[in-house]
Amino acid sequence: MTETIKWTGSEIQILDQSLLPIEEQYIDIRTVDQLIDAICKLKIRGAPALGVAGAMGVALAARSLPQAITTEEFFQRVMSESQRIIQSRPTAVNLQWGVDRVLARMKSLRSPSVSALQDVALEESVSIKNEDVDSCVQISKSADALIRSGMSILTHCNTGSLATSGIGTALGIIKQAHQGGRRIHVYVDETRPLLQGSRLTAWELKKDAIPHTLICDNMAGYLMKLGKIDCAVVGADRIAANGDTANKIGTYGIAALCRFHSIPFYVAAPLSTIDCSLPDGESIPIEERGPEEITNMFGRPTSPSGTVVYNPAFDVTPGHLISAIITDKRIYYGPDFSFSN
Amino acid sequence: MTETIKWTGSEIQILDQSLLPIEEQYIDIRTVDQLIDAICKLKIRGAPALGVAGAMGVALAARSLPQAITTEEFFQRVMSESQRIIQSRPTAVNLQWGVDRVLARMKSLRSPSVSALQDVALEESVSIKNEDVDSCVQISKSADALIRSGMSILTHCNTGSLATSGIGTALGIIKQAHQGGRRIHVYVDETRPLLQGSRLTAWELKKDAIPHTLICDNMAGYLMKLGKIDCAVVGADRIAANGDTANKIGTYGIAALCRFHSIPFYVAAPLSTIDCSLPDGESIPIEERGPEEITNMFGRPTSPSGTVVYNPAFDVTPGHLISAIITDKRIYYGPDFSFSN
Repeated sequence: MTETIKWTGSEIQILDQSLLPIEEQYIDIRTVDQLIDAICKLKIRGAPALGVAGAMGVALAARSLPQAITTEEFFQRVMSESQRIIQSRPTAVNLQWGVDRVLARMKSLRSPSVSALQDVALEESVSIKNEDVDSCVQISKSADALIRSGMSILTHCNTGSLATSGIGTALGIIKQAHQGGRRIHVYVDETRPLLQGSRLTAWELKKDAIPHTLICDNMAGYLMKLGKIDCAVVGADRIAANGDTANKIGTYGIAALCRFHSIPFYVAAPLSTIDCSLPDGESIPIEERGPEEITNMFGRPTSPSGTVVYNPAFDVTPGHLISAIITDKRIYYGPDFSFSN
Repeated sequence: MTETIKWTGSEIQILDQSLLPIEEQYIDIRTVDQLIDAICKLKIRGAPALGVAGAMGVALAARSLPQAITTEEFFQRVMSESQRIIQSRPTAVNLQWGVDRVLARMKSLRSPSVSALQDVALEESVSIKNEDVDSCVQISKSADALIRSGMSILTHCNTGSLATSGIGTALGIIKQAHQGGRRIHVYVDETRPLLQGSRLTAWELKKDAIPHTLICDNMAGYLMKLGKIDCAVVGADRIAANGDTANKIGTYGIAALCRFHSIPFYVAAPLSTIDCSLPDGESIPIEERGPEEITNMFGRPTSPSGTVVYNPAFDVTPGHLISAIITDKRIYYGPDFSFSN
């Protein structure tokens, strides 16, 4: 299985997803600046993988500090670097969650040395990664009853090994169903503008020899009308307390089209993606990205110079359009979500 | 105004739309083979423009024949070339309609000479082009009451001067509303896979200084949810007797999303796009195009080698999802269409 992010002993190593599927190149991340650059350029992406990246980023920041400084200065500087990491991408809550977990773990130590803080930061970030591996498996187990042999499943963006430390969330469910012998077919939205579906999801499905068909995003509705989609399953970048879900742009359209055609629409995510501090999706920050993602391809213009674009990286799907949210603990069924138990 | 296709005196000249917006290059079409190649490669496209191309193609075929042959042989050879032209793209009815009109005009002559047949073929194809110019203006007049100042209008693919001989169908309505002083804003679907929205529609809107924003197709639904779309207006490649409409892939999804959000969805087309020989959309032939349109961009792969794709160039929107069909004669209102008067 592809290891999208790992700690090598002295630095972070990631698979540069911006080059896939043309090149499979691993890059070393030695500084917080390099990590932020990699996150902003989507060399690493996917909510759970960003959780690990954020955690390892704090460990990297901690280890870059001299052991001679006071713990007070240590915390000041680590907190400042942590803020920069969190702000690199605003929508996925996992990034903040990963950072916060490492910070909390460090703060839990009594009278620590800088060296002990550095060790515990790394330890916690590796734990987060290991838990993510388990969490993916648990999500796929939770979904077991939903995916039946003969199904055609629509998915959007990438939610596999490249987006997590494990088999994936939505794509993990698909992989486990296939591995368990269920005859399934996957329709893969190419996922404009950055083509995470065609570049990344098709790449993972090919590796695992899972039957799939690549489509343009605008074909999904027509496939539903033709009766070719039995359910849709996607990931999530942040889920509010009422089930409203921020995910890759285009997700809302799929959810609305699923409802229009009476097709089940599932969201798969670890509990760490649920942000109960937000009552609903209204206050989820939605990242808007640069126009060149839409106006250019491989550096060549695809629209007239100066064209104004709207390029939100995510949208928010209201909980009432979600048939079920599949987590690593259990399935929550809609239309009214409550994650308290 | 851009002249997308014209007769130069001895040959057809077209603006090569496959090169826009990077290059604005006109090419000469001297043979039916060149015309078929240009149609298949979408150097010329758009249902009404294809009607003119088909008609001029018959004129070209007629003029390529020696005047010494019998009229019987002349018709045999022209009919055979006409069949090849019609088959180059199956979905838009206008291509066949343009070819048939020229053939019918030639057949209407009594005891003609080959020379007279050649002249009348050219004359009829030029008439079809001139009528198309008028028809666009009439469509925009029919739509007058539907487009109000302050509206944000979603459109898909290209339905302007590049798709017709005049100001366009759906885009013609938008242009006339703007020229008439109505304050409108256009959201342009980029229209995957071949980006006719970003390459062609944004190019036309920029030329006419009409305010617009380019979006990826998968963003349209979210804009509807945000209340930013007041209506959608698209063109048509073939309309069946019950209003079922074949148009660029993605149109059905927009229509379904419009219905889901209670937003008016309009189709604009000349009466020549209505094919009353078909009771409904079931029997409209849908062209499927090659996988490379989705798996590659500018010759570089955007998905793993060997990826299987589904690439229908069109979809069919049921008449009951269409609020109104705006023609050059009048508006027909849904959900039940009858074009008899």
